[in-house]
Amino acid sequence: MRIIIDMDEVMADNFPSFHRAAEERFGRVVRPEEYRGKKLYDLPGLAEVRNVLYEKGHFRHLPVIENAVEVVRELYEHYEVYIVTTATEFRYSFLDKYEWLEEHFPFIHHSRIVFCGDKSIVHGDFMIDDKAKNLDSFEGVGLLFTSSPNLNERRYHRVNNWLEVRDYFRQERKGRIAQEG
Amino acid sequence: MRIIIDMDEVMADNFPSFHRAAEERFGRVVRPEEYRGKKLYDLPGLAEVRNVLYEKGHFRHLPVIENAVEVVRELYEHYEVYIVTTATEFRYSFLDKYEWLEEHFPFIHHSRIVFCGDKSIVHGDFMIDDKAKNLDSFEGVGLLFTSSPNLNERRYHRVNNWLEVRDYFRQERKGRIAQEG
Repeated sequence: MRIIIDMDEVMADNFPSFHRAAEERFGRVVRPEEYRGKKLYDLPGLAEVRNVLYEKGHFRHLPVIENAVEVVRELYEHYEVYIVTTATEFRYSFLDKYEWLEEHFPFIHHSRIVFCGDKSIVHGDFMIDDKAKNLDSFEGVGLLFTSSPNLNERRYHRVNNWLEVRDYFRQERKGRIAQEG
Repeated sequence: MRIIIDMDEVMADNFPSFHRAAEERFGRVVRPEEYRGKKLYDLPGLAEVRNVLYEKGHFRHLPVIENAVEVVRELYEHYEVYIVTTATEFRYSFLDKYEWLEEHFPFIHHSRIVFCGDKSIVHGDFMIDDKAKNLDSFEGVGLLFTSSPNLNERRYHRVNNWLEVRDYFRQERKGRIAQEG
């Protein structure tokens, strides 16, 4: 069984960097409630905050989302895990993301990493992603990882954090073993 | 219809660089006949030639395979073309390959580029690749692009050069139009 896992806002947290850019460059202290259901950089006057994504080093120093390391490790032992991340828009993201994975997820083999632009190109059994758009073109089961911009999305099974992901796949394995046994 | 196109030995020619490394670093002038059915760096004493792949700049300055630009452009107009290349083993290949594509194939949108390790993760209707291993795990039609190491492979439809690729897909379109009309 193959699980496809997204990086940004699932494994890596871009929000602190967006908040910092909003404050330092535009003098705006943004509260998370302000961008419920949309992107921080969709707020009036903050479109340019998105430009941090093009900067060298941006993706190298993002905090890891809580419990991601332990749960991805558990999944990696039981499934064919692929990390599939949108990267080709940002030329400096490749090496930054690669080294970030190496630092925080050293157990992930390089053959299980995919840098792409449009995720409709990959296939598998499960996809964990914070963007409904990526799940829309996926043929397997889509799990929507909760993030402020997707709070109004109702179409996918929602996982609110990595412990819920862990439990979902423990159930999935238990169900399969019961069926096979 | 989606066509997945490989880069190395299909769009970009690594052989001149391998020959140069064999000569400059190991004093060996290699003739192409010597590595028919295998890799140049599988020849006795030349295993380390493969290390050029890890060097910064290697993938940035490869010559373009004859007629690749014109034919990929024609395919790009008629199909959903994705460039899918093995890159994650080589950390400096990402930016080099990206800039190489930008220089020689500026019409390819970044969303159509995929850097991966194991091509079983992608799906589509056609795959053009010089490695049978990549075609083995592909669910669509595999086209084997001729290269010295694959000359003994008999399992796939062989395309010997880009003009043959062009003709194959002109026929493919003609066939579909006839069927639809």
